[in-house]
Amino acid sequence: MRDWQLRVDDLPDPTPGPGQVLTKVLACGICGSDLHMLVHGEESRRLSDELSDGMPADPMAPKMFDPHQDTVMGHEFCCEVVELGPGCENLKVGDVVVSMPVSFDANGVHPLGYSNVYNGGYAELMVLNELMGLKVPTGLPAQMAALTEPLAVGAHAVVKSRIVSGESAIVLGCGPVGLACIAELRLRGIGPIVAADFSPKRRQLAEQLGADVVVDPRETPAIEAWRKVDGAHPLVIFEAVGVPGMIEQAMRMAPRDSRILVVGACMQEDRIHPMLGIGRELNIQFVLAYTPDEFAGALADIADGRVDLSPWLTGTVGVDGVPQAFADLGNPEAHAKIVVVPGT
Amino acid sequence: MRDWQLRVDDLPDPTPGPGQVLTKVLACGICGSDLHMLVHGEESRRLSDELSDGMPADPMAPKMFDPHQDTVMGHEFCCEVVELGPGCENLKVGDVVVSMPVSFDANGVHPLGYSNVYNGGYAELMVLNELMGLKVPTGLPAQMAALTEPLAVGAHAVVKSRIVSGESAIVLGCGPVGLACIAELRLRGIGPIVAADFSPKRRQLAEQLGADVVVDPRETPAIEAWRKVDGAHPLVIFEAVGVPGMIEQAMRMAPRDSRILVVGACMQEDRIHPMLGIGRELNIQFVLAYTPDEFAGALADIADGRVDLSPWLTGTVGVDGVPQAFADLGNPEAHAKIVVVPGT
Repeated sequence: MRDWQLRVDDLPDPTPGPGQVLTKVLACGICGSDLHMLVHGEESRRLSDELSDGMPADPMAPKMFDPHQDTVMGHEFCCEVVELGPGCENLKVGDVVVSMPVSFDANGVHPLGYSNVYNGGYAELMVLNELMGLKVPTGLPAQMAALTEPLAVGAHAVVKSRIVSGESAIVLGCGPVGLACIAELRLRGIGPIVAADFSPKRRQLAEQLGADVVVDPRETPAIEAWRKVDGAHPLVIFEAVGVPGMIEQAMRMAPRDSRILVVGACMQEDRIHPMLGIGRELNIQFVLAYTPDEFAGALADIADGRVDLSPWLTGTVGVDGVPQAFADLGNPEAHAKIVVVPGT
Repeated sequence: MRDWQLRVDDLPDPTPGPGQVLTKVLACGICGSDLHMLVHGEESRRLSDELSDGMPADPMAPKMFDPHQDTVMGHEFCCEVVELGPGCENLKVGDVVVSMPVSFDANGVHPLGYSNVYNGGYAELMVLNELMGLKVPTGLPAQMAALTEPLAVGAHAVVKSRIVSGESAIVLGCGPVGLACIAELRLRGIGPIVAADFSPKRRQLAEQLGADVVVDPRETPAIEAWRKVDGAHPLVIFEAVGVPGMIEQAMRMAPRDSRILVVGACMQEDRIHPMLGIGRELNIQFVLAYTPDEFAGALADIADGRVDLSPWLTGTVGVDGVPQAFADLGNPEAHAKIVVVPGT
C-alpha cells in the first residue's frame, strides 16, 4: 500500500535482527480492517492525530506508518521459519508459527501489517520476534492456523462482555468479526445466539459457526427473533457492523440492563440518543484486539478442534491476486475470508 | 405544571386509598430534572413514544402524565403523616417520612412528581404508599431528609461504576447530580476526586462535599489536574453535565480502559466518534435513579452523619415561590438546591 492504494511490487528481502527470525509466509487472511484502511485511512489518521494532541507521549505506543511510503499489510499470518537471527534459542528453521502482529526492536513497537519498517503477511517473507512466535501443532493446516488472529478478536470481545452461561447474545453483522464472536460464544456454551445479516451466504456461515437463529433484519428484527427464542435472560448485543447508526440501533433494541459490545470499527462520526441508554441503564463496552493469552487460547481452540472454522475459508489467492481479492470481498455472497498463499 | 408551564393553583385535598397515607409536605427539593422537563419535556415525550413503538407492553411501567392536565411536580420530599388510609399498620399520624417517588394502586405504578393522579412534593398535601415510607430518625431536619433522593442518585451512579478503593474519579459538572456523586465517592473513601465546573460557587460546593481538586475547565482541563494528583490508577469519569458533546468530551480525555458513567441526562441527540472508544477500550455505563436499598442507605448516611450535605442547601421558598425558584436555579452562582417548604 502506498498513498492509500494497493500495489504489487518487489521489495528487498528483510533481515532478522537480534532475537528475530526470518519467515516464509504460508498463509495470511485478508482482514476487513485492511479494506477499511484504504477507504477511511486518511480520516482515521486525522482523528488519531487530533486525539493524541495534548495526550502524554507514550514510548510503548505502536509507531504510525507513513501512508506515502510502502506498507505491506496483512496481520493474520502463519509462517515457516527459514532463518534465525542472532541469539534465537527457542525456534528452529522449519518451525511453523503464528504470532500476534506486533514486532519490537530498539526503536519501539511496530504493528505488523501497518508498518513501514516490517513486512506484513501479504509478502513472501516477513520478520517476526522469536518471543512472539507460537508454534503451530503438527497437522494443523497453515490456513486454519492463520484464523487464530480473527478468532482472538471474537474471543476478546466475548471475554470483555463478561457474558456467562444463562445469558444470551445477539450478533449484528456476520462479517469476519461477527462470525468470530459467534464461534467463540458457541465454544463457551452461550446460547441462544441470534445473528443478523442482510446476506444469505453470511447467514449460512453464521449458522455453520454456531448461531441458533439467523435473520435477515429487513424481514425480522433481531430483537423479535430473540424474544421468540428467549426474551427473558440478560442479553448482550455484539455490534459487528461498524457503520454509523449501528450503536443507536443496538441501543433502540436493547432491553433494560443490556450490554452492548462495540466490536465493529466505525471510523466516522456517529449519532446516539443518550436518553435511550439512560432510560434502560445500558452499558456500552468498546473493544479492540486481544491479549496474548486470548491469542494463544484461540490457536489452541483451533488446533484441538474445539471450534471448526473451515466454513469461514472461502478462497485463496497468491500475492498478485491481493488487489482483486480486496474487490471480491466487497460482495458478501462471494466471499467471507480469503487467504493469501504466496507462491500460488 | 400544565401545558409545560408552571402555575400556582388550588387543588382539592387528596384522599388516601387502602394502604396509603395522607401527608403534609415539610420540605421538597427542586430537581434539575424538573427544570429540564419544562424545556425538553415535549422532545423527550416524542422520543419516548417512538421508543415504546414495537416494544412489548409492560404493565409495571410507570404511567405517563398528560402534559395538558395538571401535574404537581416535586420528587425529593420529606413529609409528615396526617391521616391513615384503610388498612395501614406501620405508620402513625405524626411520623415524618421520606419515600421513593413512586406510588401504586390497582391502576398500576405512578411516578410521584410526574403524575396527573398523585401530587408531587410542590403541594401542601400528598398521598404516599405506607409500604414505601421510611421513617426519618428524630432530630434530622426535614430539609436534610429531603436530600435523601438526590444523594441516592449519586449513590446509584457510584455503585454502578463498580469503583473501588485505589481507583480515582473525575466528576464533570457540579450541579446537584455531580455534587451527589462527589459526596458519595468521598463517603466511600474513593480518591483523589477531581471536579470540574465553570461556576466558582459550584466548585466551592464541590470542595465542601469532598472533591480533592476542583478546576475551571476553561483554565485547566480536568484530565490535566488528574494527571498531576494521580495519573496512574484506573479512572472513572462521571459525566454529570448532560448536554450534547459531553460524552465525546469524556471519551476524549479518558485514558485506556476507563469507565464513563453517564449520570447527566442529555435529552437531545448527541454525537460521538466510536473510534475514541475502540482505541482505548472505553466502557460507557448509562444510569438512572436508584434501587430501594440505595435510597434507604442514603437516608441512613445522612441521618447518621456519615455525610454532611448542609452546604448544598442554598435556599427555601413557599409553594408560591416555586416559579421564581425555577428561574433562580438558572444562575449557578446564586443557588445549588432550593427546598420548597409549603406554608412559608
